[in-house]
Amino acid sequence: MSTLDVAKRYVELVKEHKNAECLNELFASDAVSVEAGAPPGQERTTRGVDAIRGKSKWWNETHIVHGGSVDGPFPHDDRFAVKFSFDVTFKPENRRFTMNEVGLFTVKDDKIVKEEFFYTQ
Amino acid sequence: MSTLDVAKRYVELVKEHKNAECLNELFASDAVSVEAGAPPGQERTTRGVDAIRGKSKWWNETHIVHGGSVDGPFPHDDRFAVKFSFDVTFKPENRRFTMNEVGLFTVKDDKIVKEEFFYTQ
Repeated sequence: MSTLDVAKRYVELVKEHKNAECLNELFASDAVSVEAGAPPGQERTTRGVDAIRGKSKWWNETHIVHGGSVDGPFPHDDRFAVKFSFDVTFKPENRRFTMNEVGLFTVKDDKIVKEEFFYTQ
Repeated sequence: MSTLDVAKRYVELVKEHKNAECLNELFASDAVSVEAGAPPGQERTTRGVDAIRGKSKWWNETHIVHGGSVDGPFPHDDRFAVKFSFDVTFKPENRRFTMNEVGLFTVKDDKIVKEEFFYTQ
């Protein structure tokens, strides 16, 4: 697969809210996930797909998604970017806001080895 | 200035179509610009702000901008991303299309030292 193939599949799965499948199918076991800022009580960097699954689970349990859009992918060599915009409620604070961010993904041997999220804190 | 200050100023100047001021004020003299793909007759990588000015001049002379949007900035450490969407006509071919891309910018010592453009070719 090319980086663009991986990128298109990523966007397809995320649009279908198939986050677990996305991690299983497209992420390297030693993939790294880096946030622009640390979520409450967490580190900015999550190492390994098992830990990323844990972060994804935490996110799904603490947020309600009312709607949103996934724009992309935008490839460049072995990386691709995706623009996310989600209307969500953070349940612990009952706070509704728009999550506007860019994800930057690095692909190696047909797997995503790094995801980095860009946003204003 | 922080990376976010540079990023906000970049977006402000680009929204005002002040591309020359943007290059003069925010780019390091040895900044590098990398396209996802090479424009016709050009290299993917442009080295130095003078050469980037040349690329910018070529772009302005060969495109008509009918409208568009600049979304961001989205910061992450010493980098920031910007989502561009421009409705343009490429004059040499009289071809109108939507230019949808993400720019990734790296900041060092308050100056942009690298810009990378992500898009489908």
